[in-house]
Amino acid sequence: MSFSPLIVRLMDALQCLPGVGPKSAQRMVLHLLERDRQGASQLSEALKAAVEGVGHCQRCRTLTEKDICDICTHPERDGEQLCVVETPADVLAIEQAGGYSGHYFVLMGHLSPIDGVGPEDIGVDQLLAQVETDGVREVILATNPTVEGEATAHYIASALRKLGVKVSRIAHGVPLGGELEYIDGGTLMHAFAGRRELVD
Amino acid sequence: MSFSPLIVRLMDALQCLPGVGPKSAQRMVLHLLERDRQGASQLSEALKAAVEGVGHCQRCRTLTEKDICDICTHPERDGEQLCVVETPADVLAIEQAGGYSGHYFVLMGHLSPIDGVGPEDIGVDQLLAQVETDGVREVILATNPTVEGEATAHYIASALRKLGVKVSRIAHGVPLGGELEYIDGGTLMHAFAGRRELVD
Ligand SMILES: [Zn+2]
Ligand SMILES: [Zn+2]
Repeated sequence: MSFSPLIVRLMDALQCLPGVGPKSAQRMVLHLLERDRQGASQLSEALKAAVEGVGHCQRCRTLTEKDICDICTHPERDGEQLCVVETPADVLAIEQAGGYSGHYFVLMGHLSPIDGVGPEDIGVDQLLAQVETDGVREVILATNPTVEGEATAHYIASALRKLGVKVSRIAHGVPLGGELEYIDGGTLMHAFAGRRELVD
Repeated sequence: MSFSPLIVRLMDALQCLPGVGPKSAQRMVLHLLERDRQGASQLSEALKAAVEGVGHCQRCRTLTEKDICDICTHPERDGEQLCVVETPADVLAIEQAGGYSGHYFVLMGHLSPIDGVGPEDIGVDQLLAQVETDGVREVILATNPTVEGEATAHYIASALRKLGVKVSRIAHGVPLGGELEYIDGGTLMHAFAGRRELVD
């Protein structure tokens, strides 16, 4: 004997969430049905509303329920700087770090020939068109320091070269507060290669 | 700038799930909206269906969408044995272990005076009435070997004593395949106290 069909269905459905396997799905179902049915209903409604309402910003491609997102329409953001990132989470991380007040362009992924993800899938044409028509002076490439992120940054950099816009890449190296002995070798090599002369 | 309202609402709602904090909720939202909208819709529907459809079995109190659950109505289960457990997950664990073919009574918790959970909340009256009218010959107490589970088992055992039914408690001790040196002291003491003479 197993759980009843509606419970089994919910246990299966919860496993679409990253990091949720059969055991934690079971714990979640029992928790919701025994102790938090209101939370379960609110989650059901929130999922439905997000799936139906959230699309992509027509300018920067980030996830939003508006045609153009709040950052793209904000009157005090600097339209001359455009920061290219892989995901909406990267936008949030940069916003939370503070200090950057330009616009973004969200690739919603990175180039990955193996998975069939080409330049058109990450919106490179749209990016080039916007840079050309919107008065962008500097494109800051903030894709991840992974093999795919680096390849994507290089591809975009060479596509932008003919437009005569300044293209920069965010610095990679030892994180602030990081201890050298715990940093991986790739990062350390990167930090050495990117060393700058100290001037006083 | 933060995420848009529908995304923030979904991130908040996901945190009703046990073990899900802000960081994993964010990862889940982005995963669902970027890569698995169909899964998100199915999860929304499954939650709604379960909240609206799943109640408690009128006999054993386990979670089910039927008035009486499949175990209680199964013609080949032995109605003379009644196993008392704390949660529907315990029923599943015993079913998966195999070997038990009697009925269950699910307390949906344990006695906890501090949290205001008394005998009426865990259905003790209903349990006594069923034992009296349904021809139960043995009640097997399989509450957890915790302080609350033991107290609950003792309370139910003394309530059952006047009914003249056989009452037993599942054995606790060193798990099969467990190595003594890794077993906690309480379990070891329990295993010694519960030792049985070997006869050949
Ligand atoms: Zn935007
Ligand atoms: Zn039942």
